[in-house]
Amino acid sequence: MSGAPLFGRVTLIGIGLIGSSLAHVMRRDSLAGEIVVSTRREDTLKRAIELNLCDRGTLDAGDAVRNADLVIICTPMGAYEAIGKHIAPFLKDGAIVTDVGSVKLPVFETLGKHVPDHVHLVPGHPVAGTEHSGPDAGFPELFKGRWTILTPAEGADQAAVDRVRELWLRAEAMVEVMDAAHHDQVLAITSHLPHLIAYTIVGTATDLGEDLQQEVIKFSASGFRDFTRIAASDPTMWRDIFLTNKDAVLEVLGRFDEDLTELKRAIRRGDGDRLFEHFTRTRAIRRGVVDAHQDDMPAPDLGAIPGPYSQDNDD
Amino acid sequence: MSGAPLFGRVTLIGIGLIGSSLAHVMRRDSLAGEIVVSTRREDTLKRAIELNLCDRGTLDAGDAVRNADLVIICTPMGAYEAIGKHIAPFLKDGAIVTDVGSVKLPVFETLGKHVPDHVHLVPGHPVAGTEHSGPDAGFPELFKGRWTILTPAEGADQAAVDRVRELWLRAEAMVEVMDAAHHDQVLAITSHLPHLIAYTIVGTATDLGEDLQQEVIKFSASGFRDFTRIAASDPTMWRDIFLTNKDAVLEVLGRFDEDLTELKRAIRRGDGDRLFEHFTRTRAIRRGVVDAHQDDMPAPDLGAIPGPYSQDNDD
Repeated sequence: MSGAPLFGRVTLIGIGLIGSSLAHVMRRDSLAGEIVVSTRREDTLKRAIELNLCDRGTLDAGDAVRNADLVIICTPMGAYEAIGKHIAPFLKDGAIVTDVGSVKLPVFETLGKHVPDHVHLVPGHPVAGTEHSGPDAGFPELFKGRWTILTPAEGADQAAVDRVRELWLRAEAMVEVMDAAHHDQVLAITSHLPHLIAYTIVGTATDLGEDLQQEVIKFSASGFRDFTRIAASDPTMWRDIFLTNKDAVLEVLGRFDEDLTELKRAIRRGDGDRLFEHFTRTRAIRRGVVDAHQDDMPAPDLGAIPGPYSQDNDD
Repeated sequence: MSGAPLFGRVTLIGIGLIGSSLAHVMRRDSLAGEIVVSTRREDTLKRAIELNLCDRGTLDAGDAVRNADLVIICTPMGAYEAIGKHIAPFLKDGAIVTDVGSVKLPVFETLGKHVPDHVHLVPGHPVAGTEHSGPDAGFPELFKGRWTILTPAEGADQAAVDRVRELWLRAEAMVEVMDAAHHDQVLAITSHLPHLIAYTIVGTATDLGEDLQQEVIKFSASGFRDFTRIAASDPTMWRDIFLTNKDAVLEVLGRFDEDLTELKRAIRRGDGDRLFEHFTRTRAIRRGVVDAHQDDMPAPDLGAIPGPYSQDNDD
């Protein structure tokens, strides 16, 4: 789009949905002078090269980050510690290291403790995705109209933060800067708890007898279906999220448990007023979501449109 | 569409989303010689008449069912007992009474005990809906490609069941006949539990401090948003569902509780293998849902398309 690229050499470590979508954005808008990709598996790297997602590929992350102006870590968070340790000696002076993981506080412990003083760490989290994975799943519009949250440490280099922000703005994301601990608390509610619940309910159905399970699938459009979509997300990523954001998740899960117990008690006692009051109260949040236009953005790659959730009988 | 209408006089008691959608279908395909609508509230009746959903309207359900060949009860289930008692003396010989409620076993106790021997009871449940309510919300395609489940008692009149089935087929629904108790068990899993969970999680967020709540709304596209959509369903209807399908809901909720406790324990212990195993296992159900084409049907009136649920980092 513009004259000079935003960055000279950009290195992507890991090239799944997020990494490949970022590569598409950088290709489309010529944001990087050169894109280097490093992966753990050889077939992933081969595919990234076939898809023209990089100018050069390597299985050695240390080699990949040499002379990089920007290093974007797009692997499961469980790999951060090893990657940080491995790449640290090869990072050039003034390089920026960022990531796209869903939990931010632990990044300072895993990556941060290895990143040398002459390198800028700007952790990031694009709140975007689909249920598809791998280098073939990426597309440049993935981040359009979505939030990306940056969580630099206090006193981080402002110029480095601004350059990472600019990358996300070019991807048409909305960018918010936030304290890492606060990020993890907010996401525990908006994302991690909903996913845990969806995984649980789908697991409960998985344990049913074969016949009943077939009927559950058959009539899944009545609500259950939407949980299966959420629970189809990448297992490795979600394992790492729950392992790394343990405290915030357990805290909000405790509140959820209390509220569920209360509703269960109302059902057992036949307390219709209590149920009605609860079901009415939750509508305000729904209005907030609709008013904030968080409910009207298309997700081009999902290939799935929500069905009805409930019927409604008015008298 | 065809020559003679399916039914002479059809009476709709209640004219919310389901009732008005059925009226649209009957108008479109000339399935009823005459449509009579009865409502509890005068303004609802006025609106139904303005929308040309009926040939005649009345606030007296007893008057409405006189000489009706088919009576369709489209009110919240909490009103069934009173309606059954009130209309029973006015039902003509050989009339068919059906309903559209989400729980089927209690229909025999509430409506069934009042329906005279010379009248055929064929309970029904269209598994379709949107988050909108009232006579304005209806549209004739609501049932297209969706299941409608009929739960006649053993030994019910086959001709009556066939006529009700034909009405739903004309509405382009797929029809399944099932035992009422079994219906309630299946729907407890596919619909009632997901709704209860969604109501709970949105309620938990409602109890957060004002600032945090605003952020939850802002970043709701990461999973939470879909729960708010489910939890926006009609409170009266859902109160009645949980009051009437209490046993099946509490049973499946007990299983869910056990599974959630197990996942919680795995998180607390940092048992990544256990989490990974669970998150992988749930994918099979998702494949079943996709294979059964329960995930690719548009819901024309929702005005909402699902956003991303998760990002996915492949290495």
